[in-house]
Amino acid sequence: MIDSCISSKKTFFIIIFTSWFIFGNQPETTAQICNEGIPLFGAQVFIEPGQTQEEIDAWFRILRENNMSVCRIRMFESYMKKNDDSWDFTLFDNAFEAADKYGVKVFATIFPYTEKTDIGGFKFPRSEEHLNSISEFIRHLVTHYKQFDSLSGWVLINEPGSGSVSNNQFADKKFKEWLIKNPQKENTDKGYPVLMDLTNQRFLMDFNTWYLYWLANEIRKYDQVNHLHVNTHAIFDLVAEYDFPSWRKFLNSLGGSAHPSWHYGYFDRSQYALAMAANSEIIRSGAGNIPWMMTEIQGGNNTYSGMLPFCPTSEEITQWLWTTIGSESKGNIFWSLNPRASGIEAGEWALLTFQDKPSDRLIAVKDVANTIHKNEELFRKAKVVDSGINLLYIHESMWAENLMATPSKQNYEGREKGAVMKSVLGYFEALSEMGINCNIKEFNEFDFDKENYSGQVIILANQLSVPTYYLSELEGFVNRGGKLIVEGMTAFFDENLHNTMQTGFPFQKLFGGNISEFKLVENISYFSLNSQKIPAHLWRGLVENKTGKVISGQDNEIFAIRNTIGEGEVIWMPSLLGLGSRIEKDYNALSLWLSEEILRVIKSPFQFESPVPGTFMKTMHSGENYITIIINKSGIEKPVSVIAEDKSLKADLIFSNYRNQIPDSSRFLLKNDETLVIKWN
Amino acid sequence: MIDSCISSKKTFFIIIFTSWFIFGNQPETTAQICNEGIPLFGAQVFIEPGQTQEEIDAWFRILRENNMSVCRIRMFESYMKKNDDSWDFTLFDNAFEAADKYGVKVFATIFPYTEKTDIGGFKFPRSEEHLNSISEFIRHLVTHYKQFDSLSGWVLINEPGSGSVSNNQFADKKFKEWLIKNPQKENTDKGYPVLMDLTNQRFLMDFNTWYLYWLANEIRKYDQVNHLHVNTHAIFDLVAEYDFPSWRKFLNSLGGSAHPSWHYGYFDRSQYALAMAANSEIIRSGAGNIPWMMTEIQGGNNTYSGMLPFCPTSEEITQWLWTTIGSESKGNIFWSLNPRASGIEAGEWALLTFQDKPSDRLIAVKDVANTIHKNEELFRKAKVVDSGINLLYIHESMWAENLMATPSKQNYEGREKGAVMKSVLGYFEALSEMGINCNIKEFNEFDFDKENYSGQVIILANQLSVPTYYLSELEGFVNRGGKLIVEGMTAFFDENLHNTMQTGFPFQKLFGGNISEFKLVENISYFSLNSQKIPAHLWRGLVENKTGKVISGQDNEIFAIRNTIGEGEVIWMPSLLGLGSRIEKDYNALSLWLSEEILRVIKSPFQFESPVPGTFMKTMHSGENYITIIINKSGIEKPVSVIAEDKSLKADLIFSNYRNQIPDSSRFLLKNDETLVIKWN
Amino acid sequence: MIDSCISSKKTFFIIIFTSWFIFGNQPETTAQICNEGIPLFGAQVFIEPGQTQEEIDAWFRILRENNMSVCRIRMFESYMKKNDDSWDFTLFDNAFEAADKYGVKVFATIFPYTEKTDIGGFKFPRSEEHLNSISEFIRHLVTHYKQFDSLSGWVLINEPGSGSVSNNQFADKKFKEWLIKNPQKENTDKGYPVLMDLTNQRFLMDFNTWYLYWLANEIRKYDQVNHLHVNTHAIFDLVAEYDFPSWRKFLNSLGGSAHPSWHYGYFDRSQYALAMAANSEIIRSGAGNIPWMMTEIQGGNNTYSGMLPFCPTSEEITQWLWTTIGSESKGNIFWSLNPRASGIEAGEWALLTFQDKPSDRLIAVKDVANTIHKNEELFRKAKVVDSGINLLYIHESMWAENLMATPSKQNYEGREKGAVMKSVLGYFEALSEMGINCNIKEFNEFDFDKENYSGQVIILANQLSVPTYYLSELEGFVNRGGKLIVEGMTAFFDENLHNTMQTGFPFQKLFGGNISEFKLVENISYFSLNSQKIPAHLWRGLVENKTGKVISGQDNEIFAIRNTIGEGEVIWMPSLLGLGSRIEKDYNALSLWLSEEILRVIKSPFQFESPVPGTFMKTMHSGENYITIIINKSGIEKPVSVIAEDKSLKADLIFSNYRNQIPDSSRFLLKNDETLVIKWN
Repeated sequence: MIDSCISSKKTFFIIIFTSWFIFGNQPETTAQICNEGIPLFGAQVFIEPGQTQEEIDAWFRILRENNMSVCRIRMFESYMKKNDDSWDFTLFDNAFEAADKYGVKVFATIFPYTEKTDIGGFKFPRSEEHLNSISEFIRHLVTHYKQFDSLSGWVLINEPGSGSVSNNQFADKKFKEWLIKNPQKENTDKGYPVLMDLTNQRFLMDFNTWYLYWLANEIRKYDQVNHLHVNTHAIFDLVAEYDFPSWRKFLNSLGGSAHPSWHYGYFDRSQYALAMAANSEIIRSGAGNIPWMMTEIQGGNNTYSGMLPFCPTSEEITQWLWTTIGSESKGNIFWSLNPRASGIEAGEWALLTFQDKPSDRLIAVKDVANTIHKNEELFRKAKVVDSGINLLYIHESMWAENLMATPSKQNYEGREKGAVMKSVLGYFEALSEMGINCNIKEFNEFDFDKENYSGQVIILANQLSVPTYYLSELEGFVNRGGKLIVEGMTAFFDENLHNTMQTGFPFQKLFGGNISEFKLVENISYFSLNSQKIPAHLWRGLVENKTGKVISGQDNEIFAIRNTIGEGEVIWMPSLLGLGSRIEKDYNALSLWLSEEILRVIKSPFQFESPVPGTFMKTMHSGENYITIIINKSGIEKPVSVIAEDKSLKADLIFSNYRNQIPDSSRFLLKNDETLVIKWN
Repeated sequence: MIDSCISSKKTFFIIIFTSWFIFGNQPETTAQICNEGIPLFGAQVFIEPGQTQEEIDAWFRILRENNMSVCRIRMFESYMKKNDDSWDFTLFDNAFEAADKYGVKVFATIFPYTEKTDIGGFKFPRSEEHLNSISEFIRHLVTHYKQFDSLSGWVLINEPGSGSVSNNQFADKKFKEWLIKNPQKENTDKGYPVLMDLTNQRFLMDFNTWYLYWLANEIRKYDQVNHLHVNTHAIFDLVAEYDFPSWRKFLNSLGGSAHPSWHYGYFDRSQYALAMAANSEIIRSGAGNIPWMMTEIQGGNNTYSGMLPFCPTSEEITQWLWTTIGSESKGNIFWSLNPRASGIEAGEWALLTFQDKPSDRLIAVKDVANTIHKNEELFRKAKVVDSGINLLYIHESMWAENLMATPSKQNYEGREKGAVMKSVLGYFEALSEMGINCNIKEFNEFDFDKENYSGQVIILANQLSVPTYYLSELEGFVNRGGKLIVEGMTAFFDENLHNTMQTGFPFQKLFGGNISEFKLVENISYFSLNSQKIPAHLWRGLVENKTGKVISGQDNEIFAIRNTIGEGEVIWMPSLLGLGSRIEKDYNALSLWLSEEILRVIKSPFQFESPVPGTFMKTMHSGENYITIIINKSGIEKPVSVIAEDKSLKADLIFSNYRNQIPDSSRFLLKNDETLVIKWN
Repeated sequence: MIDSCISSKKTFFIIIFTSWFIFGNQPETTAQICNEGIPLFGAQVFIEPGQTQEEIDAWFRILRENNMSVCRIRMFESYMKKNDDSWDFTLFDNAFEAADKYGVKVFATIFPYTEKTDIGGFKFPRSEEHLNSISEFIRHLVTHYKQFDSLSGWVLINEPGSGSVSNNQFADKKFKEWLIKNPQKENTDKGYPVLMDLTNQRFLMDFNTWYLYWLANEIRKYDQVNHLHVNTHAIFDLVAEYDFPSWRKFLNSLGGSAHPSWHYGYFDRSQYALAMAANSEIIRSGAGNIPWMMTEIQGGNNTYSGMLPFCPTSEEITQWLWTTIGSESKGNIFWSLNPRASGIEAGEWALLTFQDKPSDRLIAVKDVANTIHKNEELFRKAKVVDSGINLLYIHESMWAENLMATPSKQNYEGREKGAVMKSVLGYFEALSEMGINCNIKEFNEFDFDKENYSGQVIILANQLSVPTYYLSELEGFVNRGGKLIVEGMTAFFDENLHNTMQTGFPFQKLFGGNISEFKLVENISYFSLNSQKIPAHLWRGLVENKTGKVISGQDNEIFAIRNTIGEGEVIWMPSLLGLGSRIEKDYNALSLWLSEEILRVIKSPFQFESPVPGTFMKTMHSGENYITIIINKSGIEKPVSVIAEDKSLKADLIFSNYRNQIPDSSRFLLKNDETLVIKWN
């Protein structure tokens, strides 16, 4: 049974691109992956020369047999364009014909010619000639494949983002053009010299956006109907290269690659499900009003490719799927159904065995897909419950860290690349163990234009660089009832890598004071807040209090204050508590403090009675119903007590990988690696 | 008393080089180091300007006094050719005259001009001009020194092999020529693209052979009499650059440098004697029908040179000598007698003290030499007992690994460079602790043309790439009675780095099935085979069984099968057991399983009653007699029970560094670091 | 109250530069930092655009209020020279005017234009044009600022020395000129080839001296009055680039930067005070007859800059100040008073908070300054007590190590860069724990021209390369009554990296023999000397004794000898005892042996009754009085017994950071981190 969004007739319409981009209108879309759709399942069918038509046919049949209604195909220019410049589409036509035959929808990835050892594809054109060649490829490709019913959409590029702009004439030219509109500052407004700046990284983000838009435009020249999509990757490293709000203007959905072996280096294996949850939240926020899906999920064993060799268990597959679904993903596509046969990825990543039999992982996918299809209406409308808690990260903070971070012998994480994002993750992990949802948003993705922020919390965890022009948004948020929690080295730099704490701190009125000094204490010391002793990492900021109420301190030193402004308040605790808890792998004290501090502000229809280490819960609502997804990664059997705000709700088991029913109560004993999905009526 | 091979008159003969190389005839040789010779002892006499004639004379006298009848001299072009292009041979003439005087035979190493800081010499010519200059040097050198009686042979180059071809015009030109005869494959026979290939590494091997042959040919222009030799090095890293069967066509003997401080990084100190044994076996197999010697053995302390600073003890010197002799080495030359005086190796490596007195190490050499001379006839004819067990490594497997291997944070050895060779070593070490000899051969060094392989075992341990065209040899071996043991990731790739397990596995009939999946389990898990639990590393292959009998498995998963084909059988256990045992430093379970599995097939005249950790035995036969060499590196006193197939044999002590006689039984209590050599009548 | 040296009227005098340099006369100086002055205190005032006149004024007022009478200002050409090539000195004039106003003396650092991200400044000119541009800058700068009363002196460059000469035309030209006078040796005198040499490093030292002299000369063209100074840095790494005796000819004082976060990587935090002591001794010896000061001491927290993030405690600040004062520093300038506002060092290093309030560290400085001013006459004349013990390091030894050292997996410190200096430090640390002063001198800084060396000890600890032409100085020293202790690999190389032990050891007569072999033993073994078992590292030299008396050995091996020559004696123990004790962090056995061996030779007016681990004492004399400074870094409360040679002396407390009085005895119980300064009458 196919989602009606997918099977809807394609309507033909024309977009005037220039005005579209300028006015930022969201194009009407045929939306195969759509906001009101049910979550779809699928896999990459890896098509390469040597495969027979029978083999290809079989893979699409297998998808069909396993409730997988979408797939992705990498459209290699290398395998279409012949040496005499003619085009031979036979190989990929075979795949599309099989997709047509079995009713599988295809997301086709634009993959222009690149070196045969380049497993990910290039990220930017190298020259005008190169750009023209890509344009020609798109023309041939799109005009040929838009005829297929199975075509659902185009993936503009595989995994944009690379860490840096490569040195070539094209990039230089684009940079010079860009500089005219975005001149480098020689001095701050007060006349201080700007010694290091974020220009290169800002350009990298804009250049990336430019190229994606250019690709979208090229496709739209020939196909105004099908879906446009792109998959982010290495999100915790590269997200500061992604300008999601701008992308929404030309994408129909947003996506991501989420492979622990490549992308989850900040996590150990027991944390991969939580990593998937954080990854999902970042993409969900990036997507905004357009739907999102997880475009690539690791399907099988990797040996020589990837940063870390690894084979997911069926339990992990189950956890990852329910985690993304719990974050409103409308599609889940594995990489890959069948393995590549040659080169660095040969025989790796697949859901199928070498004999095209389903692995235990594929069976796990099928089981989840079955559950979704049995509860179609429930999941079609299911939305993440917004607890009101927002972890904001800031592009400039990640850029600043990229410039500043240097490893030291002591491996102080706070001084190394990753400290900004890991601090955010520390709070995400603490809140997840409390069973509470929270958003992870780039600063610009948060809606600062509301009239009332009561019940809303923003946490700025170790956001190293906060542009001064963000002050008014933050002030507005607090004045209109919001609660702002600021920790770590947040605002140590402004957008010019200038330390304003000594030259007129713009956040003094909002935060209730200034910093006297930041001092290195120890890798881990303990920070007293209420009755909790929270692990704190490396640096401690001493507060020069002006208008706040001291909530932590010792002798004459002030460690944290509470400042009331308008209808809201700010808690400023300039120590690295999120990172400290994360390093200690102990969120208990942080969770308990957050409980005390936040729970009286926000509303969460469900939460754990007390934090459950190694276990987390995602909560959705769907019409009158709620769905809670609980995953136990603690390594042991865990009792979990769920508190529902509405005591009249009753729990129905939708899914478990280990049981058929649940007790008639809100206390569950979860086996290790169990995923429990409950519908509350 | 000098070996008659050495003292035999030089016979003059001419070889027509072109036809010689084309037809692959083995030239008749004067064979100073010869198959029927007794093992010789010697050292590098390091000759450099500044040394007086008296000093040089003394070193040759010292050699003579210590039973050392051969030496090696590095023939520096830098110290012969003057700035005005004239030649002054005085310094080296002094050495040859002293050699003549004391009856010491010289192996002279061709050492063309190189930078003075280049301690090993260049490995390939850089240009045509460079090649011409080397040719000129050889002309002057050979025509001058062939007159000396003491000249025994030429070492073509010091330690060929470098890890990669350097980038220069000459190599580029040679590569282009080579490519014409060895074109790169664009696609496999089935049409799959070849994405990564082994072309560069294959060329490196052939280029190396070409240069060695060129050097041999240059020498043979002027000297058709003396011995030609070359010394390999870093054998466990570089052996895939060495095409030994081709070398045999122009060499009179093969050799190697075996310096723990440079070359034994895969071993810890207590394993150096075993490393020497494995090194010796690789060279012995490479040598084939020509004799071999260990051309360089570390003679003394190294401080700043080498990868690891280290000074051999006299016990270690003794162990190394008996180990090479136990592998049929016909010569043992230390690096060096006297130390270099300047630069990075100044004052290092020597057997002599700074006062030219014998070190304890030199005394150890003399003791072994004495023993050999006392038993001259015994050792002249002594041959390694061939147990029938063959550990085969495959060039392509090492090449594949060189391309694929990447370090990970977890330091998984199976994924890093070295896994192919270390897997072989794991079996070598396990068999050695059982007191059983085994061969280590490159695939092409094994004789696949026999009519009957009963009593023969081949082990393919984690041979990552097995060329498809090796199938017929392996099938023939098994069909004609051989036993083939296949483990690890063997045959994961074919010769094109294509994974055939998913595209028509050519070894399916032979192995009895195919692989379903390879999955990462853990760094070490345990693999049940018969009653043994053998440590297994990283990846486990699941067998899709066709015709085999399951010998290990769990639930529905099959871990190992036994497949009978013709007169033989294949045991296929696609897990990394050799590497697992090696990482755990515990060969006991693997040894016991090998005992059960192999001992009923092969014949070994001697073996340990049960595996003796840290201890090993080499067995030779000589006429009616056997020689067993037992070395205890366990760190403690060890009781060893030797089982002789022929119970009537009686043990005579030939050598021990700790005792004068042995008990009248086959049970020996070996002191730590004891080497015990027994003759059985 | 300002030191009279500082406030003395500037006298005008002219130096004829050419003759001055040629004849090496010490110019008469106005000596603001002077040998008979009291130790001054100060800080870098970091001046940069954006700062207001009021802010700048406040910083100088703060200096005044905190007994800080000197400061340093970095004179950025970048902030003076305008784009139209005009000069605008306003910003820095503001600073000098404030200095005038508050009577603060300024050391102005010449800081020519460099990239804005270059936080330390370039070390060598890149071209003739660059040199001319520097010359022009100096002309404008010096002629403008010499008018200010507050100007005290010029710092020629910030932190000369860089590890290597950069590749550019200017350096190449200078190298060629230099080579004419300093030709490279092709061969040793005996004809041995010189394979590696120290030419590049010797040139680097001379090029450095040339540039410093050139800078001094440029300044002296316009200002013949004010003080010239330069600050060394990373002393334990870079000291072999510094030719102090040559520098004395154009400097009025010598200085250094001493930042644990950048420079004390050989030490852990509890050793930073001892590191400061060693750093001070090296500079004190380098200064010779001119005064010295610590030009930069870390004033506050560093986050992203530096090798190691770190914030000094007030206790550490106190320890560092008393340590430098105890080594006769006449000035102590912190880096910095106020933090830079932008870039990699933004918000770091300061003594002031972001609100310009005194940190606890600044208060600590003020307390020490007060103590000094209360005891002005005492400290004006205070001189280090010379115990007669001299740790000599040799430029060539450090150069040799730089060429030779290679890391190994085992991290053997003796084979890595730093072994030469760390061996010296091992003895320094052992002697310090005995409460005994000792000098650290480069070989050429020691006065070998005295008539009598009784009571004098020289220790050559692991000095890898000892030039042969140093023999006569050492012989003279011993013959005339000195005691020479030689350890480690000392004299393994001569100045040509030639190992003379095998080719005619020039030190045989002096040392009493030669080396037979150096052998690697273990990372740590134990070396028996008298009744002590001293930890020894890595290599053991075996002595071939000629004339000495064996003092350590085993079986037939000799480990150490005592050789009597003339009126003196040599102890030769060619094992790495200093480094061994340092690696083991246990100096007890070495200290006790040194007590037995040295105390009967030297005279120390004060010493600890027995070594006190983690605690040290510096002793000064001033007229009839003595001053002892005792610092407890052991981590615990420590009882310390001080033995005074003159039992009639009585102890008066001058300073403690923890107490007001001391007991009427010579036994003190020091709290952890206590600094105790006692005046003895």
